[in-house]
Amino acid sequence: MTNDSLVAELCSVLGAEAVLTDADVTAGYSRDQMPLAPSGTPLAVVFPTDVDGVRETVRACAEAAVPVVPRGAGSGICGGANAVDGCVVLVTTKLDRIVEIDPDNRLAVVQPGVVNLDLREAAAKHGLFYPPDPSSYDWCTIGGNLATNAGGLCCVKYGVTTDSVLGLEVVLADGSLLRTGRRTVKGVAGYDLTKLFVGSEGTLGVITQATVALRPLPQAPATLVAAFASAGAAGAAVSGIVREGLVPSLLEIMDATTVKAVEAYLGTELGTGSDSGALLLCQSDAGGALAKRELAAIEQVCADAGAELVHSTDDVAEGNLLMKARRVVHYALEQRGACMTDDVCVPRTRIAELIEGCERISAEVGLTIAVCGHAGDGNMHPTVVYDATAAGEAERARRGFDAILELGLSLGGTVTGEHGIGRFKQDWLAREIGPVGLDVHRRIKQALDPGNLFNPGSMFSPT
Amino acid sequence: MTNDSLVAELCSVLGAEAVLTDADVTAGYSRDQMPLAPSGTPLAVVFPTDVDGVRETVRACAEAAVPVVPRGAGSGICGGANAVDGCVVLVTTKLDRIVEIDPDNRLAVVQPGVVNLDLREAAAKHGLFYPPDPSSYDWCTIGGNLATNAGGLCCVKYGVTTDSVLGLEVVLADGSLLRTGRRTVKGVAGYDLTKLFVGSEGTLGVITQATVALRPLPQAPATLVAAFASAGAAGAAVSGIVREGLVPSLLEIMDATTVKAVEAYLGTELGTGSDSGALLLCQSDAGGALAKRELAAIEQVCADAGAELVHSTDDVAEGNLLMKARRVVHYALEQRGACMTDDVCVPRTRIAELIEGCERISAEVGLTIAVCGHAGDGNMHPTVVYDATAAGEAERARRGFDAILELGLSLGGTVTGEHGIGRFKQDWLAREIGPVGLDVHRRIKQALDPGNLFNPGSMFSPT
Repeated sequence: MTNDSLVAELCSVLGAEAVLTDADVTAGYSRDQMPLAPSGTPLAVVFPTDVDGVRETVRACAEAAVPVVPRGAGSGICGGANAVDGCVVLVTTKLDRIVEIDPDNRLAVVQPGVVNLDLREAAAKHGLFYPPDPSSYDWCTIGGNLATNAGGLCCVKYGVTTDSVLGLEVVLADGSLLRTGRRTVKGVAGYDLTKLFVGSEGTLGVITQATVALRPLPQAPATLVAAFASAGAAGAAVSGIVREGLVPSLLEIMDATTVKAVEAYLGTELGTGSDSGALLLCQSDAGGALAKRELAAIEQVCADAGAELVHSTDDVAEGNLLMKARRVVHYALEQRGACMTDDVCVPRTRIAELIEGCERISAEVGLTIAVCGHAGDGNMHPTVVYDATAAGEAERARRGFDAILELGLSLGGTVTGEHGIGRFKQDWLAREIGPVGLDVHRRIKQALDPGNLFNPGSMFSPT
Repeated sequence: MTNDSLVAELCSVLGAEAVLTDADVTAGYSRDQMPLAPSGTPLAVVFPTDVDGVRETVRACAEAAVPVVPRGAGSGICGGANAVDGCVVLVTTKLDRIVEIDPDNRLAVVQPGVVNLDLREAAAKHGLFYPPDPSSYDWCTIGGNLATNAGGLCCVKYGVTTDSVLGLEVVLADGSLLRTGRRTVKGVAGYDLTKLFVGSEGTLGVITQATVALRPLPQAPATLVAAFASAGAAGAAVSGIVREGLVPSLLEIMDATTVKAVEAYLGTELGTGSDSGALLLCQSDAGGALAKRELAAIEQVCADAGAELVHSTDDVAEGNLLMKARRVVHYALEQRGACMTDDVCVPRTRIAELIEGCERISAEVGLTIAVCGHAGDGNMHPTVVYDATAAGEAERARRGFDAILELGLSLGGTVTGEHGIGRFKQDWLAREIGPVGLDVHRRIKQALDPGNLFNPGSMFSPT
């Protein structure tokens, strides 16, 4: 099948309006939010509206030996949805129905194009809660969340995406439709294919439907902020919180560089002392007296760790203001230059070492590195800030970025806590999982996608 | 390699004392607790004491083309560890070290032969908690728990085994050593191989080490018992508890048949009215006032559902007495005959229908069927009681057992919530997952174990 006849076939199957081929238009679907990952020029970008459209697209591409790159909203930051030359980008945003919410069994059935926030709001109407909340929750889709096993601020208490998924419907490389998992809370019939597809970054199939578990909607959160003279002291507080058996619903850390950038961006002091070395932000959604007790215990741990200031509030508006400081970090840093955001996850006892190591790396490469992250689970996002127009800076930024990954591994961590591997960290995946791990990945890919149809070259090279 | 030379090789590698070949002795390792699953006669039973011993065993067996059946304590009830003729049973009970408990990162590293209870007790010394608690927790091993993705009474609040596993070390069919996962709370580097191996019932490799997440030790539980006139009313209470967003730490149901058997066994009335149709047992481990509030809310739901009696206590000894009624169910039923215990999991709204359906099936096959189970997650264990010596009864029991599986599927459930498929439910697995699902299982098995070395014929037939 020629490229022309494949496009004609896709137009015939999906309708011409669902197939884009104008290079000026398709360029907008050729990459995600990671500027440095490679991307190619797609042959076409298609928007199926139902599972049959997905199956026909996959079948036609398989027959033509044209790669399929599945894509959600494109909010990813590892190049996992980036096009390869001549591929068909299969956009799932028009599969956007919330098929069912079953409050009595606390579950929802959704198509992949549903925006995370829309599912959250629909669940909330039933007093229920879909926990995974990546920063892009107001525009990223469930399909992308499933593909990357997305995390967010909630993970310290509620886990990541895979912890909320009960079952999937997946279109395989031969166009057949696989149903994994179940609608029940428990189930051990066969291999856990559901959790194999979650986080597989579109390399094994196209997810066309998911059954997800919902939780009771938590109480409005009470919020605590604590300032420390050093990252070491803040890290000691995190370890103390873990050791005391406390499980807040949110526990974020921001280093001094991040705090200063945020203060400049918001045009206000956070009121935590201008020379504080690190800030912890913490919430409890346990409600009422229990939340008060949880935050009081955390306040005590922070004080014991030498906090210079600790402040708690159960006022939701004040809590939102404090949280705003965390939510604007990315925008605040972008004021200062181009940003390369890392995503290492280290044991929670090693957070201070990671921050201190980033200071060292910052000095070595001569660039600002601001560290913030999900302290409660050790998932840190050091951001290298650089001038993309200055000679050699992008190269130095990449050197800093890689040194942080190296540091994360040396601290017993992983090279990605929630963003994924995509087209950006393949070498690091190989290094983290080793030759046996890589070989097992290749064997599974070969078993399920022998023609290397789906997202080829992403995550790892198949040979 | 002949069988004799394989045994000689195993003796040389593991030491002669670690290799059993006397058929009278090996028979004790040829099957688990499910009397009706087929089993064969092993060539040898081996007890490696370290990962190298496992690797050498696997390599030698691969070379001799002799199947390897991994086995823990043998507490399983689906025949998943049953020998096939001429195989080597690889017993992991001598890999029994708790390698590390890291309280500051709330994790433990253990070998597969560690008994579940021993890990629980070791964690408790650090104020920590390993949740999965199958009924056999005082003798089953972590390795078996991992192989079957074991559940227990805790699952309603704390999930199943896979929810507590961070990483694994696995010996593959070629003797190579795969390390999956991580020590961090989060991590999305590559496919989730950890959760693929958990629940794979020894068909893909031999787990030689696991890194598991621990939780803060919960408070001593407060306990509630509620008696209802009918299974329907008890089922309505379960639905109400779920709908109200309540998450007790335990929520068990026992039908009238079960209650009567337990009362006879214990020689005492449970004090819930001699003609009650179903009993709910519930615990909260939230502690103090919060536990009181949780149980009060559940008490209200039970009353609204028409409970004839509801009683709560925060006295631990009294709670243990009430729990004893649940824990002795299996022994109580064994007094009445041979037992075939089912393991269906249905949506929580369908529990009453399952119990009522079991009454119908009981009448049809002319045998007692007692239903109890983990109501909080819909995982029910109807037990068919029969006289193994009476002509035709075993056949009728199996007919009842199968009818219950059929019923479970028709209610939107699964044929196994926590026990597994093993050598007993292969046909039911095929039916539940369908031809595409089965094909994917076969492709993954072929990819990782092309010689069909591990546990052949268990779970599904490879061709």
